[in-house]
Amino acid sequence: MRYSQMLLPTTRETPAEAEVISHQLLLRGGFIRKLSAGVYTFLPLGLLTLQKVSAIVREEMNRAGAQEILMPMVQPGDLWMESGRWQHYGPELLRFRDRNDRDCCLGPTHEEVITDIARRELQSYRQLPVNLYQIQTKYRDEIRPRFGLMRGREFVMKDAYSFDADDEGAAKSYDRMRLAYNRVFSRCGLDFRMVEADSGSIGGSYSHEFMVLAENGEDTLVLCHNCSYASNVEKALIKAPAEKPPVSQQLEELHKIETPGKKQVATVAEYLQVPREQIIKTMVYMADEEFVAALVRGDREVQTVKLKNLLGADIVESLTEEQVWTALRLPVGYIGPVDLPLRVVADYEVMSMVNAVAGANDKGFHYEGVNPIRDFSVQIVGDVREIAEDDACPLCGGSLYFKEGIEVGHIFKLGTKYSEAMEATFQDSEGQQQPFIMGCYGIGVSRIVAAAIEQNYDENGIIFPLPLAPFQVILLNLGPNDEILTRAADTLYQGLQQAGIEVLYDDRDERPGSKFNDADLLGIPFRLTIGKTFAKEGKIELRERRSGETTSLPLTEIVEAVQAHIQSALATL
Amino acid sequence: MRYSQMLLPTTRETPAEAEVISHQLLLRGGFIRKLSAGVYTFLPLGLLTLQKVSAIVREEMNRAGAQEILMPMVQPGDLWMESGRWQHYGPELLRFRDRNDRDCCLGPTHEEVITDIARRELQSYRQLPVNLYQIQTKYRDEIRPRFGLMRGREFVMKDAYSFDADDEGAAKSYDRMRLAYNRVFSRCGLDFRMVEADSGSIGGSYSHEFMVLAENGEDTLVLCHNCSYASNVEKALIKAPAEKPPVSQQLEELHKIETPGKKQVATVAEYLQVPREQIIKTMVYMADEEFVAALVRGDREVQTVKLKNLLGADIVESLTEEQVWTALRLPVGYIGPVDLPLRVVADYEVMSMVNAVAGANDKGFHYEGVNPIRDFSVQIVGDVREIAEDDACPLCGGSLYFKEGIEVGHIFKLGTKYSEAMEATFQDSEGQQQPFIMGCYGIGVSRIVAAAIEQNYDENGIIFPLPLAPFQVILLNLGPNDEILTRAADTLYQGLQQAGIEVLYDDRDERPGSKFNDADLLGIPFRLTIGKTFAKEGKIELRERRSGETTSLPLTEIVEAVQAHIQSALATL
Repeated sequence: MRYSQMLLPTTRETPAEAEVISHQLLLRGGFIRKLSAGVYTFLPLGLLTLQKVSAIVREEMNRAGAQEILMPMVQPGDLWMESGRWQHYGPELLRFRDRNDRDCCLGPTHEEVITDIARRELQSYRQLPVNLYQIQTKYRDEIRPRFGLMRGREFVMKDAYSFDADDEGAAKSYDRMRLAYNRVFSRCGLDFRMVEADSGSIGGSYSHEFMVLAENGEDTLVLCHNCSYASNVEKALIKAPAEKPPVSQQLEELHKIETPGKKQVATVAEYLQVPREQIIKTMVYMADEEFVAALVRGDREVQTVKLKNLLGADIVESLTEEQVWTALRLPVGYIGPVDLPLRVVADYEVMSMVNAVAGANDKGFHYEGVNPIRDFSVQIVGDVREIAEDDACPLCGGSLYFKEGIEVGHIFKLGTKYSEAMEATFQDSEGQQQPFIMGCYGIGVSRIVAAAIEQNYDENGIIFPLPLAPFQVILLNLGPNDEILTRAADTLYQGLQQAGIEVLYDDRDERPGSKFNDADLLGIPFRLTIGKTFAKEGKIELRERRSGETTSLPLTEIVEAVQAHIQSALATL
Repeated sequence: MRYSQMLLPTTRETPAEAEVISHQLLLRGGFIRKLSAGVYTFLPLGLLTLQKVSAIVREEMNRAGAQEILMPMVQPGDLWMESGRWQHYGPELLRFRDRNDRDCCLGPTHEEVITDIARRELQSYRQLPVNLYQIQTKYRDEIRPRFGLMRGREFVMKDAYSFDADDEGAAKSYDRMRLAYNRVFSRCGLDFRMVEADSGSIGGSYSHEFMVLAENGEDTLVLCHNCSYASNVEKALIKAPAEKPPVSQQLEELHKIETPGKKQVATVAEYLQVPREQIIKTMVYMADEEFVAALVRGDREVQTVKLKNLLGADIVESLTEEQVWTALRLPVGYIGPVDLPLRVVADYEVMSMVNAVAGANDKGFHYEGVNPIRDFSVQIVGDVREIAEDDACPLCGGSLYFKEGIEVGHIFKLGTKYSEAMEATFQDSEGQQQPFIMGCYGIGVSRIVAAAIEQNYDENGIIFPLPLAPFQVILLNLGPNDEILTRAADTLYQGLQQAGIEVLYDDRDERPGSKFNDADLLGIPFRLTIGKTFAKEGKIELRERRSGETTSLPLTEIVEAVQAHIQSALATL
């Protein structure tokens, strides 16, 4: 492709709207343009990258025996009512009525549609297993779409769904996808980890996420120094403590104490001269339609996904100070479990606290000498706190470390959640109707484009992994008005194309400086420069974007050298 | 692909819901399944066919210098308000509000979005011409979706948009697309015609449609025996007659006559013993918010697209007898222009009628001796009737013939309709801001799948043109439990795949009869059968689906023979 004939609007300025590096570089490099909040057009270079990802995903899905189909984006509401998610999915499910006044929604995922296909087309165990996938545009009406392609409202996803006759088969299907996912992300040239994950609104019995490691990741990964344990922090379980040891301390009397302006755990601890571990942190949330309180030790954080699962709620939301005051007349910063008119969920650790400090539900006051059971009751005790880096590995007891990551894939063992709700059954070998055992498997195709950049960039721009680069080579002609240079560049352009190398030919009448800058910004792995050195010595410069290493070669050796570089780069994946 | 591992649910019964042959065969062959009215899932075989079409379209667009992008399906309403189409598009534009209460719509087409991109990214004439295209899912909320993939609500379309600095450039862009479209449909192996067409809700100054000839086409094409004239019947113009000749007949008095129960032109003509050409046919329509009447000679038909254009209306709708009576107290069958309280559009021919018959706006009565101007006034005179096969060619005066066709492509010279409305300008060579001269170019990618079948089938099923077939070859093993046959079939399957031939291997444990039936139904161009003849004589049967011609060859010669057949079939395109 000739640069002069491509819509490739690069900019020098960093757009103010873009907070994260991938969003900035995708805008600056002319890969994408915003249409509305969280909704983007892929310009030619962006689409080429997206197609690279799609092709890898498609190949690996086919290799794993999945069959490609294409389901509609507009889905009938009645299927969602059957599965029960019409009520439970929340406002991310964009609902509307068509001109015949039928309930519809834009598909954020396709469990309902595929289960409907399965119950109509798969009658017998002899037809199983089946795995169907699509690469398709999804829509989720995020309340705060942000970070460009990282968390958009409209995005491209690969979603696959497996149907098996029994748990053993379902486990095999899950494993086959797990392996395929490992291949996909390896072939994309990404540094990633597979971690245990929460199943969220998709549901099912267990799931794993594939996380691209990156500093700006929205997720936190918990990894063990000692064993292979890897989990999303949302999911990382903390074992219930052993039987509560008998209390050796004298239980103090409950007494109220003035703590004016002391609303944070840290300031209360300092003011009262107690360690943070001695304070009960009380947080109020809205769980579906109900206000609830969660208690953790003062040095811990509530993990809302765990809270949601303990409550069996669809949505758990944080509240502002004002919301809590308006609805409950409770002063945030001074809330505590004593005489609290809410359902209370307490972390295991809280239950063994003795003579703790907690808010008195009275502005400017705390209690000292607070003791669980004696002074307040708890409706649910469980693992509701977020794991900390100094916790022990839940698997081996080893020491943990955290990493930031970007979720690019998620596989779910669904079991019979959808097949039972929607009465999707097959006849087993004994003639009995059985619900399908299902799995579902997602890859954020457009998100991979962003994640790859979050993991691969420098101060000059993107450094694409070779398999995802929109072009393998960028060829700069620094003398577009010089006949000799241009003839050489044209010849080389043709030679590269004939060798099957994907080349962007910068034939523009621009100064060398902007050509170099654009080449770096776009992140194309190999750069060829035809300039002064060619005029003087007949040499062309070959530079690798990532390492910055350069070599100079005569025109006749360039194609072969580039091919060798490409082959060796792909061989490492 | 092994048939046994593919979701390929063929059925023998013709589904009751399917009126046209392509819809029937696509359902019976397991290519598609209905999700809701006009909304279909592509099963594996259907998607393969769709991908064949997409690949041809993509190659020809790229070859013509268009650049592929991907625009969102959810579009912001404000862009449609800018272009004016929010008000004018009608209920096919599915509108809704997102969770932030912003007006949105599902893109039925993308003129607004692309014009917004152009005005932001194209500043100078030096960047022009630009042609951007996408292959993407569209949604039009059809009131009566029907005929499967022929007129769905959700469908896959290729839409391209060109931006030029002047009319000359725009004409070149249009021509380039015209040629590309001819190549696309030729390469698909379709018998098609390019015809003049109405621009409809897209607008612009002129347009051409590409029509696949087929008996069940929704459109009628007007073609000339003598010259290259070809038009959609909606658009086929009839020249205004020469100056009205002086009336040689005596004008009769207007008089009312009883015509009990005579509501049709034919029955009135018979009852009053006058030729049908002597009767004024008066039709009432709703044009946007206004009732209007259209007059044509009794032997003619009103062409509503012409009426719409004469009125400058957005929508012209037919009315039921009841609607007309309820709103206007006019009795359908007895309506006429004398004392009619509506705006009247008359065809040229009507203005030269003398002593005509027309309804008296009184149930059971007509007038005789009706004369235009003297007895009724007309607000608009024009070409409002549908051309007839006995009309003369508008171009050369030669004789015409009609064909049925299916619209698969439509190219539009838009001019500055969108660029002016949306203030999309560039700086010309003299530093002046000018609106882009635009064109837009659509191909119904999923509709091509249906159109190809409407043109290519027999009583046994589909006969795919080779370039669109989901597989080039179907290989039948008639003895899946016979070791020798199966070893031969497995070997041949591998050999075909290694030669790059797309083969569906029917390895199922089914009777030969159903394998033959399925092979015919699916329409795969070449069938290979390994059965008794192989066991006896070592011969494999090669059969061409279209001609039914068979040859028997030894295993070792099959791959070469198939390759030769494929090459010769593709060479004719």
